[in-house]
Amino acid sequence: MLGGRILHGGDYNPDQWLDHPEIFEEDVALMKKANVNCVSLGIFAWASLEPEEGVYQFDWMDRIITRLETEGIQVILATPSGAMPHWLTQKYPEVMQVQADGRRNLPGKRHNFCYTSPVMREKITAIDRELAKRFGKRSNVILWHISNELGGNFADSVCHCEHCQAAFRIWLKKKYGTLENLNRAWWNYFWSHTYTDWEQIHSPVPNGETTSTALVLDWRRFATEQMNDFYQLEARTVKEYSDLPATANFMYFFKGMDYNRLKEGVDIISWDNYPYWHKQKDEVPMAVKAAVNHSLMRSLLKAPFLLMESSPSSISWREANPLKRPGMHMLSSMQAVAHGSDSVLYFQWRKGRGGFEKFHGAVLDHRNGSDTRVFREVTELGERLSGLGELIDHTVNRPKAAIIFDWDNWWAVEDTQGPRLDFNYVKTILKHYRVFWENGIEADLVDMNDSLEGYSLVAAPLNYMYKEGYPEHVRKFVENGGIFVNTCFSGMVDDTDLCFTGQSPLEDVLGIIQEEIDAPSEEFENQFTYGGSVYPAQYLCEIVHAKENTEVLAVYEKDFYAGSPVVTRNSFGKGEAYYLAAESSLDFLRAFYQDLFRKAALENALQTKLPYGVTVTERVGDNGKRVVFVMNFKNEPVCVEGIGKWTDAETKEVYEGTLEMKPFQCMILI
Amino acid sequence: MLGGRILHGGDYNPDQWLDHPEIFEEDVALMKKANVNCVSLGIFAWASLEPEEGVYQFDWMDRIITRLETEGIQVILATPSGAMPHWLTQKYPEVMQVQADGRRNLPGKRHNFCYTSPVMREKITAIDRELAKRFGKRSNVILWHISNELGGNFADSVCHCEHCQAAFRIWLKKKYGTLENLNRAWWNYFWSHTYTDWEQIHSPVPNGETTSTALVLDWRRFATEQMNDFYQLEARTVKEYSDLPATANFMYFFKGMDYNRLKEGVDIISWDNYPYWHKQKDEVPMAVKAAVNHSLMRSLLKAPFLLMESSPSSISWREANPLKRPGMHMLSSMQAVAHGSDSVLYFQWRKGRGGFEKFHGAVLDHRNGSDTRVFREVTELGERLSGLGELIDHTVNRPKAAIIFDWDNWWAVEDTQGPRLDFNYVKTILKHYRVFWENGIEADLVDMNDSLEGYSLVAAPLNYMYKEGYPEHVRKFVENGGIFVNTCFSGMVDDTDLCFTGQSPLEDVLGIIQEEIDAPSEEFENQFTYGGSVYPAQYLCEIVHAKENTEVLAVYEKDFYAGSPVVTRNSFGKGEAYYLAAESSLDFLRAFYQDLFRKAALENALQTKLPYGVTVTERVGDNGKRVVFVMNFKNEPVCVEGIGKWTDAETKEVYEGTLEMKPFQCMILI
Amino acid sequence: MLGGRILHGGDYNPDQWLDHPEIFEEDVALMKKANVNCVSLGIFAWASLEPEEGVYQFDWMDRIITRLETEGIQVILATPSGAMPHWLTQKYPEVMQVQADGRRNLPGKRHNFCYTSPVMREKITAIDRELAKRFGKRSNVILWHISNELGGNFADSVCHCEHCQAAFRIWLKKKYGTLENLNRAWWNYFWSHTYTDWEQIHSPVPNGETTSTALVLDWRRFATEQMNDFYQLEARTVKEYSDLPATANFMYFFKGMDYNRLKEGVDIISWDNYPYWHKQKDEVPMAVKAAVNHSLMRSLLKAPFLLMESSPSSISWREANPLKRPGMHMLSSMQAVAHGSDSVLYFQWRKGRGGFEKFHGAVLDHRNGSDTRVFREVTELGERLSGLGELIDHTVNRPKAAIIFDWDNWWAVEDTQGPRLDFNYVKTILKHYRVFWENGIEADLVDMNDSLEGYSLVAAPLNYMYKEGYPEHVRKFVENGGIFVNTCFSGMVDDTDLCFTGQSPLEDVLGIIQEEIDAPSEEFENQFTYGGSVYPAQYLCEIVHAKENTEVLAVYEKDFYAGSPVVTRNSFGKGEAYYLAAESSLDFLRAFYQDLFRKAALENALQTKLPYGVTVTERVGDNGKRVVFVMNFKNEPVCVEGIGKWTDAETKEVYEGTLEMKPFQCMILI
Repeated sequence: MLGGRILHGGDYNPDQWLDHPEIFEEDVALMKKANVNCVSLGIFAWASLEPEEGVYQFDWMDRIITRLETEGIQVILATPSGAMPHWLTQKYPEVMQVQADGRRNLPGKRHNFCYTSPVMREKITAIDRELAKRFGKRSNVILWHISNELGGNFADSVCHCEHCQAAFRIWLKKKYGTLENLNRAWWNYFWSHTYTDWEQIHSPVPNGETTSTALVLDWRRFATEQMNDFYQLEARTVKEYSDLPATANFMYFFKGMDYNRLKEGVDIISWDNYPYWHKQKDEVPMAVKAAVNHSLMRSLLKAPFLLMESSPSSISWREANPLKRPGMHMLSSMQAVAHGSDSVLYFQWRKGRGGFEKFHGAVLDHRNGSDTRVFREVTELGERLSGLGELIDHTVNRPKAAIIFDWDNWWAVEDTQGPRLDFNYVKTILKHYRVFWENGIEADLVDMNDSLEGYSLVAAPLNYMYKEGYPEHVRKFVENGGIFVNTCFSGMVDDTDLCFTGQSPLEDVLGIIQEEIDAPSEEFENQFTYGGSVYPAQYLCEIVHAKENTEVLAVYEKDFYAGSPVVTRNSFGKGEAYYLAAESSLDFLRAFYQDLFRKAALENALQTKLPYGVTVTERVGDNGKRVVFVMNFKNEPVCVEGIGKWTDAETKEVYEGTLEMKPFQCMILI
Repeated sequence: MLGGRILHGGDYNPDQWLDHPEIFEEDVALMKKANVNCVSLGIFAWASLEPEEGVYQFDWMDRIITRLETEGIQVILATPSGAMPHWLTQKYPEVMQVQADGRRNLPGKRHNFCYTSPVMREKITAIDRELAKRFGKRSNVILWHISNELGGNFADSVCHCEHCQAAFRIWLKKKYGTLENLNRAWWNYFWSHTYTDWEQIHSPVPNGETTSTALVLDWRRFATEQMNDFYQLEARTVKEYSDLPATANFMYFFKGMDYNRLKEGVDIISWDNYPYWHKQKDEVPMAVKAAVNHSLMRSLLKAPFLLMESSPSSISWREANPLKRPGMHMLSSMQAVAHGSDSVLYFQWRKGRGGFEKFHGAVLDHRNGSDTRVFREVTELGERLSGLGELIDHTVNRPKAAIIFDWDNWWAVEDTQGPRLDFNYVKTILKHYRVFWENGIEADLVDMNDSLEGYSLVAAPLNYMYKEGYPEHVRKFVENGGIFVNTCFSGMVDDTDLCFTGQSPLEDVLGIIQEEIDAPSEEFENQFTYGGSVYPAQYLCEIVHAKENTEVLAVYEKDFYAGSPVVTRNSFGKGEAYYLAAESSLDFLRAFYQDLFRKAALENALQTKLPYGVTVTERVGDNGKRVVFVMNFKNEPVCVEGIGKWTDAETKEVYEGTLEMKPFQCMILI
Repeated sequence: MLGGRILHGGDYNPDQWLDHPEIFEEDVALMKKANVNCVSLGIFAWASLEPEEGVYQFDWMDRIITRLETEGIQVILATPSGAMPHWLTQKYPEVMQVQADGRRNLPGKRHNFCYTSPVMREKITAIDRELAKRFGKRSNVILWHISNELGGNFADSVCHCEHCQAAFRIWLKKKYGTLENLNRAWWNYFWSHTYTDWEQIHSPVPNGETTSTALVLDWRRFATEQMNDFYQLEARTVKEYSDLPATANFMYFFKGMDYNRLKEGVDIISWDNYPYWHKQKDEVPMAVKAAVNHSLMRSLLKAPFLLMESSPSSISWREANPLKRPGMHMLSSMQAVAHGSDSVLYFQWRKGRGGFEKFHGAVLDHRNGSDTRVFREVTELGERLSGLGELIDHTVNRPKAAIIFDWDNWWAVEDTQGPRLDFNYVKTILKHYRVFWENGIEADLVDMNDSLEGYSLVAAPLNYMYKEGYPEHVRKFVENGGIFVNTCFSGMVDDTDLCFTGQSPLEDVLGIIQEEIDAPSEEFENQFTYGGSVYPAQYLCEIVHAKENTEVLAVYEKDFYAGSPVVTRNSFGKGEAYYLAAESSLDFLRAFYQDLFRKAALENALQTKLPYGVTVTERVGDNGKRVVFVMNFKNEPVCVEGIGKWTDAETKEVYEGTLEMKPFQCMILI
């Protein structure tokens, strides 16, 4: 919604075809035909823009931007750090990342550079400045696209070179002040891990230290910091000569970087979405995965975001890459808008003839021009989007529910040696989020630093770490009437992975005391009864004691901890806190949250029960305008009953009581 | 058939037993008893022949050759590069291969040397010359055996040392002339991969470039070239002092080297065959695997070849190594002859007492002398072979059918990031070849550089790459009346893995236009009807459009591409081209090729339908002599009906109408 | 039983809490409450004891030892080599282990040092000496605990640095005298592996030599030797100032070190036991695994041993870590005592707040003090143990049966390239031992160097290697009336992995001649009839010939070796030797050994048939005192019938005929 329209278009890499001017002409003509209004330029163009050190060759890009301006096509302009030119890596091999095994990368692939490297920083600054000078004030250039998929370094986001080691030590000194503080926070008095000199500290590497979970955790934080710092450098540089906002395209559940840290310097969030549609006939799990990522991106700044990349067709890097079935491109794109995106952009406009991504879906294929199913579907979508600009302008989703999704917790819980070694934080989050999705109740994904104000229900599954300040957020939230959910293996450690001793920080709020944690094998699976139905207790079963005033809603029914609580509720202030002491099934979560939604007065925009495969989101304007998106992820017609009276925002048709939906349809109601 | 007899014998490593002269005496006596007429000497004997640099110690070999001469036993003489002596690797560590991770190998195992290394080339030349001088004209020495299993370097065939990097750059300069040409051919303008200095080019390595498919492809070609060059050097050297032919023993579907490139310098093809018999009761899949390799070896020079190694018993390097069941040694050996071999040779004559291969099957075991089942079966085979020499002299198989099997295509299709990442070219070839085998119709395996003249049917499955000149070969072949088969994901790229744009090079011949490629998951498996039966369309389903005059023989029956062609036929010139747009089952291929065999008037030598497990091959002499091999790979008697009248070449028995075969029997009919 | 009591307590790491004096006070109080009488101190305390090079800080430990003395708690004092301080690795990086890939470890984890390193040896000697001086004569210090889990270097026990290479060559020179001897013993005349200079010899590494099985074998022996040498150095050092015995805590089936070699310098054997209870409902397989390790530890010195570590609760390093069910802590601990342990010790007393092992079970958890199930169960066990001291004083198990368990054989058979590559020696041993266990018949685990005197039955499964002297041991054992069992793939090689030629060394004793070895796939599984029942012959099927006087007890019933012997018995001297030519099922072994137990007059102490899940052991005093342990590993009551008359050593209750046992109960009868 930069410039008032929903952006439609995507990565455009004409530097592949500079020796084919006729291709460019065809591109422009077909962009118009396809209702493309925006392209991202220069993503991997460093070698074309600066063919030798200090020699800039910007004319080709100037020609393209000028021509696109004429055609009314806007430009998102990338800085070229996504891929380094060979002259750079040849002359300054020190820009290459050093791997955890101590070996410096050789040139190749993309990224792979050291985010700390002074040379890299100098060289990228130089070209960024020139780009900004030349193109930073062009009328159709609307946004800076900093680097590409920051941290997407194929194997590992981080560099272990001496520059990085030194920077890590400085970062630690700043954080801990003294080695004594660090040793205490990292529990280094065990295993003789006490540091007596800052120089003894080294990044975690397989042939060195990997068992210090606090070291690993701080190293991950530092890595985020270095990438963030690199991003900030580029953003600062281009803004010297331009007033445009800047973005960095984020990735799907990317563990390598804490996006909550990076968001502070990003003007608008954008991300790249490549769902695995048609892996199975039931598209719901994938729809949920896409939705939770859209929600995460929206929650970072609590604002509309951009879908920066997606494939108009198949992709080329999974073992098997099915084609998008008819209707899915429309639905998948509209899903982004429904969750808060102001764009549908693709990688890429035209398939290259060679290289790693030559079979990755694009608007234009190697053959058949615009006479393809894909081109027709893109065109159709473009047309629809162009009709929606006004409707969704200045609207965004404003959920009353939130799920805690926190990178520090993610890192810590999956690195710990605990009752299990196979914790999968994302899978856990998906399981909880899915119940919200199935009910058409939107949820934000917020981290532990965020205030919980404004929500009526907050779920915090597998909330292993309680970061500083977080218990207070939760306590205040519940006191003020919020409903809070914690699950087993929550509240174990503080920010540096030190176990809490004595009382748990939220014992008063949760009303339970944890004693032991069982990780039963399949043969030892337990069970409990909730709301009249029996559900499994499996994978992780905590033995907790309910405090005096805590209600026990369900108890284990087998083994030596039979009778011990599984589901508890504690009234605290005006609110309530629930504890789920065991992992259970999706069906249990459905029953459990149903009760909580009722309590919290949460319901979907249509105020009705949704059939399987259908969900609802709502974008709300400052003026109270409500735009409701109803999406059918079944490849069959479905009928939504009991919907009240709504008008189709596009066809103006009025529906009352019943909504008949086509396969893979997304309807927009007002 | 060197010297008029079928060679029987194999690798003989008396250098293990030089301190046991009585062992040598026993060896000679038992060789005579076992009907051995040929041994391969010196395969790994460098350390024994040159115990220190420049000091040659050939007397022991001289004694052995002399004695074997007396006994009428011929010698295949090896050059010793298959394993390096420790003095060499100690003094010149630079002869060791550098791995892709940049680490130089330490001495050990076998091979592992750098094919480019000047020192290695100098040292091998020196000893080869001495060997040739001393033994190159001996009356019973009949063939040079250059190195051993060239490229069989345990992990990886190629070396990444600086010598190799330099040689690679020279090779590329010769091929492309300018960096601009190379950049264009490799599509380096994407991802800023443009080279601006030849020195920037480095072999593909995990911590460097791996995503440039064209680089990887040319590196594989270069590696073949270096090994070929090394082979040529050795062959040239020994031929200075000898008029004998030379061979290199090839391996089973060896991806590391393009044997079609190497064949040019090999006088007679030889190979090492270790089928996994008795893995399951149905021996057909394994019989097919062995057969296709024999056919490949025969097709390289379209001439008889040598079975250079095989095991008379079990082997010792698979997780489980079953014994050859009685009859299988005879059948497996005769299968080689049936497909064009003029020898049955073993690794090895006598099991060593120690080392890596001490339990690998051999004619003589550690105990029990000649009083073993294995020795008796070897003896029996030797006797049979000695009676067949005259019969098969100057005969070879001359199929009318061919299957395209091309290393460049193999490399490219398995390296590409496409609709799937798990293409298995060999598995695909085996599936098609198997139908030919089951019908007793022999096929050559030819590469895309070969002319297709002389064949009536050519199948080119998974023919991803169309190499330069190949479309013309195909067009001419079909014009002249040939039947050609292409399958999905064919004709995508040219020699450097660049996608064809515009029209496909064989669009006129095939009569179809490709639009999209689906890689459906199991739940999305499609189907089609052919000849009244329903078959699956799975794994890869291309959506193609039939051109006006193209006949559609079957269409998809499900999903959004229902009605789109799966099997097409296009008449072109005097011939026909078929396109199979989807992967299907073996049963479909059986039905499909049945129709094509009829059209192409291809039938087996017995002109009858063969029972399951039985196949037929035919060696033909210049004089029109026909020798028919009928093989039963079932461990049960079978009866072949409708065979006409034939004479058993060995027993002289006459069969008419019916052939009763014993378990695992191979019969030779004339 | 050091000091007359069964030791109860375990690893105590107060160096984690030195800034919390109140913790230490609580510890002491709760130790008393929990009936703890012994703790192990200083396991990982190097950094606390010597915070900088040469500066010793022993006061804290002195205070603790003094206070424990007051409280009547004994101390096992560790040398601190289990984990190195950072000042050491920073100043002397050469103490770090060099991995097989040639890279030197960076500091971190535990161990990881080079056992050969002169600096490491110097530094450990210095602190060991100081520790011994200061604490070596304290009244409550009872035992030296040398290092911790020697060789437990996370990845690999051995170091490949230049110091180690040199030491290896010296070790080889001493063993073989000349290179010629070594070349012959290692069969280096094959593959040109002949060494002509000692300097050419290098440890086996992936990018060097791995195919020389004799090299690998000697390298493993050398590694044991270096670790042993390091142990001896530490033991010698602490004994300069102290008369205390020394131990090294061994590990569960640890392949990295031949404990039979190390035992020579260990005064009392100790080991760390972490069984995977409750992985499945049937606890027998795990009970057998624990039992066999206890038996191995007892057999090393044929004396009582110490259970040095165990968890009072769950552990934290398996993928899933179930809690010990009520009763299992008691049973699992008593099992150790039943098999010869004089202690039950834990890792660790109190969970640390941070680091790798913060969730590993301990007596005290992070919260809840002594008010936990775990603490109560520990206390209860402590009480029971304190009542048993007198009873088991000077008793130990003295089995009449033995199973050969030999590290050299383990290494050799799993490294060889033979009929199979997946030999699992431990699994084979467990299968045989389990039959003894189920019958309540104890067995020692002895290596091939041990005399077999005193046993009536010796089983030697998968006895691939016959070490020097071993055939004589066996021959003498059988001659004197012993019953001996060998199984397929036995007697293949000598000490350096050289195959025996001619007659097998035990051909006269076993009465069979081996010819071939089949490794049939599942479809080719064979069978035989023994005692009226049909059993499978699978995995490995040897074809052997019975000698004239050998009885054939069962023959193969299928395939081409039908009729060939599977089970044979040969009378030799006063004894008998059995050969099992094929792998079969556990059921077969049950039937087979039943017959042998009868022959050898072996029965359990209760002289009755034990129900499934129950076993019996017996500790015997010099005075003939018998203490019988009856253990029920079922979590259900069981009834043992036909037991005669016994008195419960603890309750003094008398049982006659029938013994009613509770779930997971261990009863002690006299």
